[in-house]
Amino acid sequence: MTHMVYPGALHTRFQHVIGAMHLMQLAIDTLRSKGVLVSDEEEEAALVAILLHDIGHGPFSHSLEHTLIEGVSHEVISSMLMDRLNVEFGGKLTLAITIFNDKYPRRFLHQLVSSQLDTDRMDYLNRDSFFTGVSEGVISFDRIIKMLAVKDDELVVEAKGIYSVEKFLIARRLMYWQVYLHKTVVGAEQMLIKALKRAKELSNQGYDLFATQALQHFLKNKVNADNFTTEESHLNWFTKLDDTDIMSAIKSWVNHEDKILSTLCSKLMRRDLFRTELRSQDFSEEEIAMVRDKAKQHFDLSEAEVDYFVYHQTIYNSAYSADKEPIKIINNKGKLLDIAEASDLSNLEALSKKVVKYALIYPKELGFVEDGITFNFE
Amino acid sequence: MTHMVYPGALHTRFQHVIGAMHLMQLAIDTLRSKGVLVSDEEEEAALVAILLHDIGHGPFSHSLEHTLIEGVSHEVISSMLMDRLNVEFGGKLTLAITIFNDKYPRRFLHQLVSSQLDTDRMDYLNRDSFFTGVSEGVISFDRIIKMLAVKDDELVVEAKGIYSVEKFLIARRLMYWQVYLHKTVVGAEQMLIKALKRAKELSNQGYDLFATQALQHFLKNKVNADNFTTEESHLNWFTKLDDTDIMSAIKSWVNHEDKILSTLCSKLMRRDLFRTELRSQDFSEEEIAMVRDKAKQHFDLSEAEVDYFVYHQTIYNSAYSADKEPIKIINNKGKLLDIAEASDLSNLEALSKKVVKYALIYPKELGFVEDGITFNFE
Amino acid sequence: MTHMVYPGALHTRFQHVIGAMHLMQLAIDTLRSKGVLVSDEEEEAALVAILLHDIGHGPFSHSLEHTLIEGVSHEVISSMLMDRLNVEFGGKLTLAITIFNDKYPRRFLHQLVSSQLDTDRMDYLNRDSFFTGVSEGVISFDRIIKMLAVKDDELVVEAKGIYSVEKFLIARRLMYWQVYLHKTVVGAEQMLIKALKRAKELSNQGYDLFATQALQHFLKNKVNADNFTTEESHLNWFTKLDDTDIMSAIKSWVNHEDKILSTLCSKLMRRDLFRTELRSQDFSEEEIAMVRDKAKQHFDLSEAEVDYFVYHQTIYNSAYSADKEPIKIINNKGKLLDIAEASDLSNLEALSKKVVKYALIYPKELGFVEDGITFNFE
Amino acid sequence: MTHMVYPGALHTRFQHVIGAMHLMQLAIDTLRSKGVLVSDEEEEAALVAILLHDIGHGPFSHSLEHTLIEGVSHEVISSMLMDRLNVEFGGKLTLAITIFNDKYPRRFLHQLVSSQLDTDRMDYLNRDSFFTGVSEGVISFDRIIKMLAVKDDELVVEAKGIYSVEKFLIARRLMYWQVYLHKTVVGAEQMLIKALKRAKELSNQGYDLFATQALQHFLKNKVNADNFTTEESHLNWFTKLDDTDIMSAIKSWVNHEDKILSTLCSKLMRRDLFRTELRSQDFSEEEIAMVRDKAKQHFDLSEAEVDYFVYHQTIYNSAYSADKEPIKIINNKGKLLDIAEASDLSNLEALSKKVVKYALIYPKELGFVEDGITFNFE
Repeated sequence: MTHMVYPGALHTRFQHVIGAMHLMQLAIDTLRSKGVLVSDEEEEAALVAILLHDIGHGPFSHSLEHTLIEGVSHEVISSMLMDRLNVEFGGKLTLAITIFNDKYPRRFLHQLVSSQLDTDRMDYLNRDSFFTGVSEGVISFDRIIKMLAVKDDELVVEAKGIYSVEKFLIARRLMYWQVYLHKTVVGAEQMLIKALKRAKELSNQGYDLFATQALQHFLKNKVNADNFTTEESHLNWFTKLDDTDIMSAIKSWVNHEDKILSTLCSKLMRRDLFRTELRSQDFSEEEIAMVRDKAKQHFDLSEAEVDYFVYHQTIYNSAYSADKEPIKIINNKGKLLDIAEASDLSNLEALSKKVVKYALIYPKELGFVEDGITFNFE
Repeated sequence: MTHMVYPGALHTRFQHVIGAMHLMQLAIDTLRSKGVLVSDEEEEAALVAILLHDIGHGPFSHSLEHTLIEGVSHEVISSMLMDRLNVEFGGKLTLAITIFNDKYPRRFLHQLVSSQLDTDRMDYLNRDSFFTGVSEGVISFDRIIKMLAVKDDELVVEAKGIYSVEKFLIARRLMYWQVYLHKTVVGAEQMLIKALKRAKELSNQGYDLFATQALQHFLKNKVNADNFTTEESHLNWFTKLDDTDIMSAIKSWVNHEDKILSTLCSKLMRRDLFRTELRSQDFSEEEIAMVRDKAKQHFDLSEAEVDYFVYHQTIYNSAYSADKEPIKIINNKGKLLDIAEASDLSNLEALSKKVVKYALIYPKELGFVEDGITFNFE
Repeated sequence: MTHMVYPGALHTRFQHVIGAMHLMQLAIDTLRSKGVLVSDEEEEAALVAILLHDIGHGPFSHSLEHTLIEGVSHEVISSMLMDRLNVEFGGKLTLAITIFNDKYPRRFLHQLVSSQLDTDRMDYLNRDSFFTGVSEGVISFDRIIKMLAVKDDELVVEAKGIYSVEKFLIARRLMYWQVYLHKTVVGAEQMLIKALKRAKELSNQGYDLFATQALQHFLKNKVNADNFTTEESHLNWFTKLDDTDIMSAIKSWVNHEDKILSTLCSKLMRRDLFRTELRSQDFSEEEIAMVRDKAKQHFDLSEAEVDYFVYHQTIYNSAYSADKEPIKIINNKGKLLDIAEASDLSNLEALSKKVVKYALIYPKELGFVEDGITFNFE
Repeated sequence: MTHMVYPGALHTRFQHVIGAMHLMQLAIDTLRSKGVLVSDEEEEAALVAILLHDIGHGPFSHSLEHTLIEGVSHEVISSMLMDRLNVEFGGKLTLAITIFNDKYPRRFLHQLVSSQLDTDRMDYLNRDSFFTGVSEGVISFDRIIKMLAVKDDELVVEAKGIYSVEKFLIARRLMYWQVYLHKTVVGAEQMLIKALKRAKELSNQGYDLFATQALQHFLKNKVNADNFTTEESHLNWFTKLDDTDIMSAIKSWVNHEDKILSTLCSKLMRRDLFRTELRSQDFSEEEIAMVRDKAKQHFDLSEAEVDYFVYHQTIYNSAYSADKEPIKIINNKGKLLDIAEASDLSNLEALSKKVVKYALIYPKELGFVEDGITFNFE
């Protein structure tokens, strides 16, 4: 839904994976030029792994991740699809899958696919920065890749690349707060999620809703962690879905008789998005109750129905997780250091801190919640 | 359908008109800085005119221009929609519409909206060049705009901008042959047109086809020049259409029982595009008959049905039309010259020549038509 | 001397001030569009102030700042030249000079010329980043400028621009350590300084050195804080100097009979630059003594002459000075906050910290100083 | 002298040859990927050949080519320097020199160094376009390189690259007229040439002129085709010259007692450049005589001395020479065609035409020459 705020952000997951493959190729070329042996099989497998790493994403990716199918992450679906493809290709993807699942002993190949400094992130930061115009996200992917090295089969970064890595982590943090977790985007995503949820509810109640056959499948059936992996048809239908299934339905539902569904869809189509208030301290129960009351009256809703119009969210992000596998720096004597120790500039500490914000999302018709003491970052 | 060849070309008409408005603003600022009086009302009207100049385009723009509605150009629809908006805005768009229709005496305002050197072309050449990566289309819009002037209420170009204008015309020619009339794009467009045509035919025969309500309207009704302007509902439904209506239908029709429809849709979805052979000399009747025969046998088609699988097209373009209103150059003594006369480099003559090419489009399964004597620009 | 490391960095101070003027114009346009009144006189004065803000820089700017003229900063020289120009222009620069010296009550005009968020920094960060290729320095100057506002005649930043300002401060820090204080650049600058110092010494001893007339003036005369402001001829000659005076001399001195001078110049010309070791902890006296001893022997030098071949430097930088006038953030209710308080991301603390590094610079012939316990960021 | 018109054009020949080497590497990689065998020795030789192809250029390159040394082209000097280097490198450059001189049977290697579609031109067009900001010169070097192929050891272009090659030729033509032969640049070059010529004349008359030792050598000695190749010292001194030798001299000569020399140098330093009138038809003898008369009076000159202030030049360029070795196009059946025949767009004819212009250059103080009937492209 980022394009609701940044109209240029219309690039696709296809473009992203092609870009990430390109970076993987550059990374492998760089490592080889430094004497790291990478066989042709390993090269192909790493390229396939990054090509397919996001294949389990459905329409609107993260936004609808747990809405169409409850409790099944896109990673699980990616894994299922890779296994299918592997059968189709007569086992040729086995090494790629092994790398993807981090079961291959030469771990740097997996780390290039998925880690705190992987080609996935390097591609999406630059790409999203480019298409949104938020130049804070620009990173020197070429320099970072040139600084990559391998020590004991683990991916490391040469010491003189430390500033570029720091910049990469900072860029990621800024992109989260300016783009991925932009409050208007967060609000629009919730509206979309709630519209789909309402459509499922109405379908279950026996209402007839316009939808493509594939989308109908997920509106009418309760697909979840229990049955998704056991009944093959669910995955079949899932692969037929894309954004046009969702958008052609949302457009149709603007005229649906159910007021809640039609209001949400109509507001989405007209970009009459909900207001999102974002704070560093959480909203009080009184404030939330007040907003819910206003919504109840204004839209004539029952207590349960208010959930479709007022959303309370907790949002958080940390640029660098000290808990997860750290980014390792290697100096020119071959000694390894965690980047947090190697940085003499002490910024990593700040970057490791988890930043939490609280959102209250509601229709603009309801006015403003007075923000009292907190400083409001409009 | 350009994105079938240039996957980055996903930019929208919305982005284009915002860009064209920006250029219009730059042009007006430049003219004012040279002493041309442009009132606030004229400025707003020119901006509105360029904002709305393409509003009559439906889904897939030129590709489906005469398919959904027969015999009604997008200019007519733009005009109808502007009139509606004018009523809605209480007559505030009257000057914009007057400029758009070239009825305003200060003609340079219209020429900035629509002429051989308008802000529309300046925007789309650069934008399409950027998103396709075909750098041949890059133009110096900023320099051209800085060179604009007005003489007797007509738009002219200062003499020292002549190379930039020549470059603009050349860029336009190259973009036509490398992008807009790229043979694979031309072939894909025909496949889409023929799929829609088949769907209409089947609808008329009483078949039930999946489609959004808006698309159904144009499948089931014969909308054409006669009834489009008289029956208001047609325009209402037309404004509800966008690319998702078409694509969600095409996706569904992959499984339709009609072999012709499902084959076309399936090939479009799998990007199994028809082969397009492009020549400077036309195909002989024998060649065409041979290809049609092959198609008839291979796909088991009647003579009439072959039209859905073998297309014969004439494609042409001229970078600069000497017949139309010429681009005028003004020297530093205020004297006007047609650009064709002013250019001492004699390239305009070549650019004015209409280039004609002939295309034969058919499924790849049929092999190649031997091209004999002509030089084949693959 | 940055071009010794980044060969593309050949841009000039002229390009920089033109760029900074452009940003000043954008800033004034933005402020006016927000209702801040800026008179035509104030606009011109602000543009003149930024145009002339660096006019006192001599050849090789900061590198030779205290070498040709001892104890006179470029700011003092800028001020003297502005006063001269003001006389020449019949007093027309008075307001510009008042703004430059921060004596004008509407302080935001001075703050746009010189502060922790001025148009000078905005231009040089982006420009230097561009020409070095160090993309870590890219800043969103256009967005920062759009976020500028004025409250009580002071420059402030709207709250939603806070991430862009943070990014600006981070970019500045990274540019210092990757470009301006790059160890090889620091070393090359010292070599140039020492070559000039030796030339002055030899001139004072009565040696004849090739130099342009302007450079001769500064070699033969002891120009310093005492006589520079009182004897007009010094400033006259100073304005005649540019990089070609220095470089044509350095080239000639390669063949000078004095071994120290010819060695320094020859190494500069052949880019046989000294090694710079950079550490977070200072070098011990023993280490320094050892290196000096080696140099003495290798180049056959007296104790005093070793200073021309072994340099010990302390280098420091802080991205943001909490002590200086802080950057003020304004929220959408008009409330002001110091950026350090407004940032909920706690990075400013880290950015305010002064980072100190220690350099030991010596000819490569002398080998390496063993760096023991410290982590060496090569 | 291009930077006198385009202040950003400060890039160096060093940057250019590094860029051209990069393109050479890309071209070789492309050809290898298409099955053309290029040995490691051939690769290195081609890279060395392009690295050194311009090494014979002195300060201000083409501008001073026949001024410092009469009758010796930079190609001859390049050749002499390569031979010297070859001796120094123990014969290792022999293959590179053979390729450079087009004596190697696999001619495509030479054609990549020097032909109508060489990596030299590909680099300088893009580089000069970038640094001047004249976007008309942007070419798709990457696409052209991807389209390169080899047939019978000759360099050819695949048919589908024909538009990119056309665009390349057009870009070259536009860059000539907008940048390289820009009338103000042409005028400034003549002023520089005439200043050096006057300095030589004065030196020969026994005047003492400030100059570096290397420049003195060429002022005091008559170096020409006869003695340059026989007396080794000339080449030795020539290699010591760079732009700083010229500019430090020009700066000094501003104060020289000779009025002609000081006027030319002073005008160059203050950018008070001569006016250049450019026409498609030549100036009449009367016009020229009139301007010379005016100059004689205004500057109090003898008939011979007027040559230092009034210059009459013929300037010409053709984008593509049909006479020289043509660019060959190969279709997908392996058939070769001259690009002029292959282009169905008939632009090549126009591009092959030699365009001639006439310039009259004189001090602005003399007013304007009335341009009568010709259309003046200011």
